[in-house]
Amino acid sequence: MKFSKKRLAHIVFESDDWASKTFDIVLLFMIFGSILVSILDSVGSLRASYGEIFLWLEWVFTALFTVEYFLRVWLSRKPSGYIFSFYGVVDLLAILPSYVSFFVVNSQLLAVVRALRLLRVIRILKLGRYVSEAEYLQRSLRASSHKIMIFIGFVVTIVLIMGTLMFIIEGPEHGFTSIPVGMYWAIVTLTTVGFGDITPSTPLGQFVSSIIMLLGYAIIAVPTGIVSTEMASQRKKADAPKLMTCTNCGKDNLKQVDNFCANCGIKLR
Amino acid sequence: MKFSKKRLAHIVFESDDWASKTFDIVLLFMIFGSILVSILDSVGSLRASYGEIFLWLEWVFTALFTVEYFLRVWLSRKPSGYIFSFYGVVDLLAILPSYVSFFVVNSQLLAVVRALRLLRVIRILKLGRYVSEAEYLQRSLRASSHKIMIFIGFVVTIVLIMGTLMFIIEGPEHGFTSIPVGMYWAIVTLTTVGFGDITPSTPLGQFVSSIIMLLGYAIIAVPTGIVSTEMASQRKKADAPKLMTCTNCGKDNLKQVDNFCANCGIKLR
Amino acid sequence: MKFSKKRLAHIVFESDDWASKTFDIVLLFMIFGSILVSILDSVGSLRASYGEIFLWLEWVFTALFTVEYFLRVWLSRKPSGYIFSFYGVVDLLAILPSYVSFFVVNSQLLAVVRALRLLRVIRILKLGRYVSEAEYLQRSLRASSHKIMIFIGFVVTIVLIMGTLMFIIEGPEHGFTSIPVGMYWAIVTLTTVGFGDITPSTPLGQFVSSIIMLLGYAIIAVPTGIVSTEMASQRKKADAPKLMTCTNCGKDNLKQVDNFCANCGIKLR
Amino acid sequence: MKFSKKRLAHIVFESDDWASKTFDIVLLFMIFGSILVSILDSVGSLRASYGEIFLWLEWVFTALFTVEYFLRVWLSRKPSGYIFSFYGVVDLLAILPSYVSFFVVNSQLLAVVRALRLLRVIRILKLGRYVSEAEYLQRSLRASSHKIMIFIGFVVTIVLIMGTLMFIIEGPEHGFTSIPVGMYWAIVTLTTVGFGDITPSTPLGQFVSSIIMLLGYAIIAVPTGIVSTEMASQRKKADAPKLMTCTNCGKDNLKQVDNFCANCGIKLR
Repeated sequence: MKFSKKRLAHIVFESDDWASKTFDIVLLFMIFGSILVSILDSVGSLRASYGEIFLWLEWVFTALFTVEYFLRVWLSRKPSGYIFSFYGVVDLLAILPSYVSFFVVNSQLLAVVRALRLLRVIRILKLGRYVSEAEYLQRSLRASSHKIMIFIGFVVTIVLIMGTLMFIIEGPEHGFTSIPVGMYWAIVTLTTVGFGDITPSTPLGQFVSSIIMLLGYAIIAVPTGIVSTEMASQRKKADAPKLMTCTNCGKDNLKQVDNFCANCGIKLR
Repeated sequence: MKFSKKRLAHIVFESDDWASKTFDIVLLFMIFGSILVSILDSVGSLRASYGEIFLWLEWVFTALFTVEYFLRVWLSRKPSGYIFSFYGVVDLLAILPSYVSFFVVNSQLLAVVRALRLLRVIRILKLGRYVSEAEYLQRSLRASSHKIMIFIGFVVTIVLIMGTLMFIIEGPEHGFTSIPVGMYWAIVTLTTVGFGDITPSTPLGQFVSSIIMLLGYAIIAVPTGIVSTEMASQRKKADAPKLMTCTNCGKDNLKQVDNFCANCGIKLR
Repeated sequence: MKFSKKRLAHIVFESDDWASKTFDIVLLFMIFGSILVSILDSVGSLRASYGEIFLWLEWVFTALFTVEYFLRVWLSRKPSGYIFSFYGVVDLLAILPSYVSFFVVNSQLLAVVRALRLLRVIRILKLGRYVSEAEYLQRSLRASSHKIMIFIGFVVTIVLIMGTLMFIIEGPEHGFTSIPVGMYWAIVTLTTVGFGDITPSTPLGQFVSSIIMLLGYAIIAVPTGIVSTEMASQRKKADAPKLMTCTNCGKDNLKQVDNFCANCGIKLR
Repeated sequence: MKFSKKRLAHIVFESDDWASKTFDIVLLFMIFGSILVSILDSVGSLRASYGEIFLWLEWVFTALFTVEYFLRVWLSRKPSGYIFSFYGVVDLLAILPSYVSFFVVNSQLLAVVRALRLLRVIRILKLGRYVSEAEYLQRSLRASSHKIMIFIGFVVTIVLIMGTLMFIIEGPEHGFTSIPVGMYWAIVTLTTVGFGDITPSTPLGQFVSSIIMLLGYAIIAVPTGIVSTEMASQRKKADAPKLMTCTNCGKDNLKQVDNFCANCGIKLR
């Protein structure tokens, strides 16, 4: 087995033999590992104890991802195509913040850059490459996305009207300090999340809230109905057997596996 | 191109050529703009800095919408028909509050009028004219509205019984100050919003609450079931196979696989 | 038109002519009226101002419902049958508390009796008689009630295990004072109500909570699926045309309106 | 009736005659009883009054379950098979903690063991043996479990990204102390539970929250759609018309309306 550039490109970009699958699995573990380090590093108490180790691990992952990035650029048939592709940008965003933090001394700015480094979680999107079973769900969602958009537009209209109404009824003294805050409250309520950070205090406000809640309860059915119907339709399409027409009697719901017409008995093949 | 009243009416009421489409798009931007100004004006800090500009913009939008309103009245074949139509009332409500605020001096009254001015967000309902794709959703909802009404009636009954029960069990000392407040709490709970502004404190109250919650969890399925079934049915109707008409007797629900007309017995093929 | 006992019984128990329909409508308004008085009377400020009027109205409604009750007992073909029927008991419970309050002087006991009077809201169940369109929903729910029961049993098992687990993890110092309280919290969380009166404070508790929430999110689909499927099935049964079998060729998906067999052309009727 | 080991095994493991059914019912009551004692014992006030009785009952139940456990081990055709089976482990976990608490003196350790004893609620899983009607639900859930897993993976990705984003936007000063806490908040919000223990305070945080909520509202439709579709499919399979087998060639998906076998062409009727 010759170890050429072509062979290396195969290992990096494909996943159909032992070497390329191993490469993918190692990459997967590195992505999960780097995300885990980012998460643990954000916990104050763990940072105090293991901050040194986390920093060291971060640089190891950054180094490895940098190698991977330049490997992909070098191995691509058209490097600029990879660099400006979605995954190319994600891969770059995953390593850039670490290097930027190297050149920044100002502590205030460093905090912002450290935050930017967390964008690394976008790396998890790379996993998308490995999930082929998600297609059925994706197809159903894409087919119903137009209807869901209209539905969300309808919800936003209700939110705008209700948010304004509650701002007028309850007013700043009960926490509804502006229309945007009222709209935030309306979304919290309509989606049945109900944080309770802002709640109606006046009888009229509670009455209007009750109507919004019942409305939310009734219209939550709509997106479910849309997706369910779409999924049932997608499934039916997949399950439906291809049908033929009999050349003798014209009956046309013969299955493709039939040898004779079920209506007139003529030989089909 | 003659610029007659008929031509103007075409621009205002239709949207099938360059001029009328431009009119619609400009109107759309104006609606969004006026709503945005209302929203931003309600935010205390923005009002303090840019209050002057918001007031000025408000009058510009009001002036333009006033011109549009009178244009529509003038151009309508039957002005009273437009004035008392749904959109006619919405168009009027969108401009009236600004003028009312002009004639009011009393500061107490002015606050009420200022609140009324916020009704301006009703303007968003004007957008209804532009959404033609919502028809499928509308048809499904209208077809199932009767069943949803009965369901909401059923929910209101539960709310009434549960609100009364919790008022008896928990009483005013735990925040359930009256039956209406108990009903408000029951709606908050049954719809799974759960603000947490009023919560049961006694063991019995918590037990009854648990039952309400499980009930709400189980019956949330009902509106979803209604809408899903209705949507599936609407879709099926659209997907249904085309039927043939008998050339002899005119009966028209013959399947394409039939050999003889099921009504008059004539041979079809 | 003779005004006999038989005629009166017709007016009270049936609803197919002018007099009996009027009786039903008047009764409906009286039920709503008496419930409204109970609700308004529970509001402290309204009770202070209009307590006298509410008390007077209460006695008017009680008197009228008492007349109605004895009328029904007297007019029933088998009085004991009516008295011990569901609506008979509801009718009695709706009037009894008012009379009991008459014989009770002790103010502590009076509060309990006053609470009992609120049972009058059960009267709303009488409305069940008037809603014939609710049948479709009822049939669907009854057909799926068995599956929903099993589902609720499954939910209760999760609630028991999760409530115990959170009681062990969080303990009394974070509000989880006992297993029943833990179960109450688990129901509040699993049904996505989320009051927030008790919340997990420890990292482990928050992790277990997250799993409960994702679980609740996933299994909320089950009752919806059950009801949707049942409704679709009920609808299909109602929509399905009755089919016949051709006596000549044996083909058996002929519609009942067909005059000739669509397969062999023989005259069916 | 000879009382042999074989007869005893029949009583313990089967449930088709008087003796074995009685054994099962007694066991059921014992399971419910022991769980009830665990629950009541966790309530402080009840423990203070009836702690002695609860302890005594606990030992009675433990003794009886121990007898049952050794009976099952002894009666099993292959004891090791039972011991390492799922129900064997559950049965052991249900009795072990009580004995461990007997040998522990250290009070700190005793608290942990007492907690372990609560694991006894696992006993409810024993009920699984008695629920045969749950099969339809189980089949539907198992068939859709793969899709639900992918969906939960998708939700976890959103939670990771949103939790990180909110940690950056709101920061520790508004309660978002670390990424794990941010993820806990994102799950609380996305599942529409909404405890309100942590809420966004900055306008940008409230805006991002609103998007998460609308997203949660839209994607709650997905698991429902999956389960509904699966259930409808399972039901359809059960409702599907019975097919015939050709007497000549043995092919067996012929419709009852066919005149000739679609495989070999023989005349069927």
